[in-house]
Amino acid sequence: MKPIYGGIEAGGTKFVCMAASGPDEIIAETRFPTTQPGETIQKAVDFFAPFLQRGELKAIGIGSFGPVDLDPASPTYGYITTTPKPGWAQTDLRGGILRAFDLPVAFETDVNAAAIGEHSWTPENSRFDPFLYVTVGTGIGVGVIANGRPLHGLVHPEMGHFPLPHDWRRDPFPGVCPYHGDCFEGLATGPSMKARWGQPAETLPDDHPGWDLEAEYIALGLVDMIYAYSPMRIVLGGGVAQHPGLHERIRGKVLRILNGYVRSPAILERIDDYIIPPTLGGRSGVLGAIALAIKLLGKKP
Amino acid sequence: MKPIYGGIEAGGTKFVCMAASGPDEIIAETRFPTTQPGETIQKAVDFFAPFLQRGELKAIGIGSFGPVDLDPASPTYGYITTTPKPGWAQTDLRGGILRAFDLPVAFETDVNAAAIGEHSWTPENSRFDPFLYVTVGTGIGVGVIANGRPLHGLVHPEMGHFPLPHDWRRDPFPGVCPYHGDCFEGLATGPSMKARWGQPAETLPDDHPGWDLEAEYIALGLVDMIYAYSPMRIVLGGGVAQHPGLHERIRGKVLRILNGYVRSPAILERIDDYIIPPTLGGRSGVLGAIALAIKLLGKKP
Repeated sequence: MKPIYGGIEAGGTKFVCMAASGPDEIIAETRFPTTQPGETIQKAVDFFAPFLQRGELKAIGIGSFGPVDLDPASPTYGYITTTPKPGWAQTDLRGGILRAFDLPVAFETDVNAAAIGEHSWTPENSRFDPFLYVTVGTGIGVGVIANGRPLHGLVHPEMGHFPLPHDWRRDPFPGVCPYHGDCFEGLATGPSMKARWGQPAETLPDDHPGWDLEAEYIALGLVDMIYAYSPMRIVLGGGVAQHPGLHERIRGKVLRILNGYVRSPAILERIDDYIIPPTLGGRSGVLGAIALAIKLLGKKP
Repeated sequence: MKPIYGGIEAGGTKFVCMAASGPDEIIAETRFPTTQPGETIQKAVDFFAPFLQRGELKAIGIGSFGPVDLDPASPTYGYITTTPKPGWAQTDLRGGILRAFDLPVAFETDVNAAAIGEHSWTPENSRFDPFLYVTVGTGIGVGVIANGRPLHGLVHPEMGHFPLPHDWRRDPFPGVCPYHGDCFEGLATGPSMKARWGQPAETLPDDHPGWDLEAEYIALGLVDMIYAYSPMRIVLGGGVAQHPGLHERIRGKVLRILNGYVRSPAILERIDDYIIPPTLGGRSGVLGAIALAIKLLGKKP
């Protein structure tokens, strides 16, 4: 009997649960809306229960929306902490799963799980370190693998809030971030595009000036990341970033902003292979959670 | 006979060489200007030669100005690569030392060496990871320890070139970076202050508006670093950053710019203990090079 692992991608709008041994051996998968914590966690437990009863389920990995407590020594390890999402502040997500199954349970941020997913399951990615997974959609998040492991830190990276150069003459929009106004998230998320142009991003035609501005802000954020980490590869996903043609514009602008400063052929000559879309499509996060479960048992995904 | 280690801080204007077992056991130290490569490396070799002859010298560490090649698998590992400094491009610095002594030679960036120095020799720092060493002086550099090791990456971090918000009405100065104009280095180094105000930074009185602007730009750079790494501590050194009273202003501005977003008591309640001056004074780099030499032999500094 082949061991099966559980993956939970706990998002602010939906949960994805998967039972699998890897991307090519997915046994079952489900998605349901994120309602109240008790109800939502129970649905995840119900999904995995049959695999536990058959003795197949060996470990579970969780990649969660945040902020989360990643410190195993903390009394609130595995909690979603100060989220504004109603009902979810101080939710013991990892504990809820642990108590139901009594199996090893790994816990990470949603974006670190996605980084682990893209890094572990794509042989071409796995040799790159530092490695970044960036998502630009409803929010902006970045998962980091550095020196062999996901990076945590005091809380965890929050690169969605980089202060960016903002040319007010070109873009008088003040931004939507409730903390900073015109930070990276304030200027470049889907909701900020909708607020700026009065219509959802996906309804803007390809030649709308909003896309050029969007490419500019995403490029500025990526340049900040390149200077911060000198990453060997950046995977850029998320609903907004994957708008057709946007990757090409972003790459061009990254090169223009760097202006030849980072003298690496990987960037200057092969940027199409440096900033790439996700290999796992919409499953980077949940397959990363599977990889976390496997690694927790000391095995190699 | 106690083992002695060699440290070389190879700077663009001066070299510092030290023979020591640690900060409290410095046997000898010298400083000389960085002239041509052959002559400068020979002076370093001459300094260490007596310790080698007596059989005391066990290993040497180098922290070098850059850009440098940090990849041990590269044919130009240990080289200073594309520097504009006359005569120094493609200099085999590590090889020059290695051939003279036939001892283990560790090689790092100057700022990673300084980070290692502050991290290894100050017990209070050594428990913090990620840990950043930032220097703001003639240039801006950042050394990073993340997940237990100095961070390298594709080239190495270049956080001096972060694109920053630039309020042209308040500060019409276009910046001095030859690549980017008004990036972090372009706006906040000593030379940029001198160009903006027409006099060296150190001659500006404490109540000159230049210091408030300087604190603002350094704070913006530090906020980028906080979002990128979620560091557990930041050591802020360098000639400009250590102007009396500037640290206090910077800390206040960091809190204002974060605006409560990173909810960690280490920042919100104890920022005086979060952004701190170097413990080793001007010797962070060379003592870091000593620590690198010790670590290279598998020992603990």
